[in-house]
Amino acid sequence: MTHYLYERPHTLVPLTFFARRYDSAKSSISEDLGIVRRTFAARGTGILETIPGAAGGVRFIPTISPQDAQTFIQEMTDRLEEPNRLLPGGYVYLSDLLGQPDVLRKVGRLIATQYVDQSIDAVMTVATKGVPIAQSVSMYLNVPFVIVRRDSKITEGSTVSVNYVSGSSERVEKMELSKRSLPRGSRVLVVDDFMKGGGTVNGMKSLIEEFEAELVGVTVFAESAFNGERVIDDYTALLAVDEVNSRDESIHVRPGNYLQRAFGDQLTK
Amino acid sequence: MTHYLYERPHTLVPLTFFARRYDSAKSSISEDLGIVRRTFAARGTGILETIPGAAGGVRFIPTISPQDAQTFIQEMTDRLEEPNRLLPGGYVYLSDLLGQPDVLRKVGRLIATQYVDQSIDAVMTVATKGVPIAQSVSMYLNVPFVIVRRDSKITEGSTVSVNYVSGSSERVEKMELSKRSLPRGSRVLVVDDFMKGGGTVNGMKSLIEEFEAELVGVTVFAESAFNGERVIDDYTALLAVDEVNSRDESIHVRPGNYLQRAFGDQLTK
Repeated sequence: MTHYLYERPHTLVPLTFFARRYDSAKSSISEDLGIVRRTFAARGTGILETIPGAAGGVRFIPTISPQDAQTFIQEMTDRLEEPNRLLPGGYVYLSDLLGQPDVLRKVGRLIATQYVDQSIDAVMTVATKGVPIAQSVSMYLNVPFVIVRRDSKITEGSTVSVNYVSGSSERVEKMELSKRSLPRGSRVLVVDDFMKGGGTVNGMKSLIEEFEAELVGVTVFAESAFNGERVIDDYTALLAVDEVNSRDESIHVRPGNYLQRAFGDQLTK
Repeated sequence: MTHYLYERPHTLVPLTFFARRYDSAKSSISEDLGIVRRTFAARGTGILETIPGAAGGVRFIPTISPQDAQTFIQEMTDRLEEPNRLLPGGYVYLSDLLGQPDVLRKVGRLIATQYVDQSIDAVMTVATKGVPIAQSVSMYLNVPFVIVRRDSKITEGSTVSVNYVSGSSERVEKMELSKRSLPRGSRVLVVDDFMKGGGTVNGMKSLIEEFEAELVGVTVFAESAFNGERVIDDYTALLAVDEVNSRDESIHVRPGNYLQRAFGDQLTK
């Protein structure tokens, strides 16, 4: 049952389904689910929600405990400070981390936990490096993800495009999204790997408006120090890259505002 | 325990770890794992491998049963034949399917099952649409994935690039991969969403040679009928798009060679 629920997060499974599948009485299924619920709660793995009544059942909502989240963010802070991550222009190399399944699983669970009380219809990101994060969050929220592209591709069909100002380079650029990929009125969570000036995220905000959809929140893996005014102020970052010093090849990273935003007072610091 | 193993596929977990975690005797952990193993086997969820001895433990290897694989491929065949997927130029719209977490989970499990007996160090794909497939396979194999790009990005650091002939358009193009992303000697599995002439996959093959790595196999979500000689002949496709008729807006899709290649005689047809 654990495995079945785990493969279908946020999906309501009727108790009668389990009763038939395992050829057991509903009462013993209920009892077993009680054990699963307590284990999940004790380990901070997630919430097992029970909806009573004929149309009811049980639903698994994956989460992460504040302690595990804190440990993971500390771990990432250390990894990001590795000096060989420094790239010309003050960029930080992240592709190895965002290609590791265990890192992505954690990132997905962290971001999904933050929005656990909100209803979300789709996760949005921009190609290419935001895709692994969007996909991982989408797995844990069990909603589709959509990929905004900077280049038009024939395999997308008709698209809607917007212009946006890339904050760090002050250039006007274009991004577009396949017309059929986002139904009107969708509640959208925007995620990305890295945020400097916020121009890209702002572009996605405009796109969401064009689709008459609604922005629920913005969470990025890492934000970097930015000289100037950010065009986005309401966002969450797991990590904050404070300073990149090309001369002595050092990178200073600290936890972003994620822990505060996701857990608030729950954290004992 | 199910959940713990499930989150760490292909990872050896010592029995003493579970004994400590659940404060139980190793013998009762062994017994419980026996139940988990039989359930996994009966449901075709995966293999629970036990390695005896002091350095031993238990390892979860996710797989899919031939029957579930067949059902899923049939389902996808029907979905791909939906007439509104037809795009100008004979292309087929796939982005909605490859943005659905449940579809991606199945695709990942299918491809991981095919290579379950091989040792694989990394999954490779080309940006952007192969990424979700690569990530999903990487989750089930628990190895990193690397993304080859057609455009150079400053956030990748030094890259190695190769030229390749795009089979369908006969143009020479360039693709590149960050130098640090693939260690020499890696055993690489190539995946992609769609294959026409095989030029892109061939480009990835050249890249793998440049990195002095080894190609283990090629699996694509869908192959399409191609007028001419394919530059790649040894590959697996989950689905085969036989004919796209723009006049009456029909698409003919059939299962690809996946079932035959992954399960051979195991399938009772």
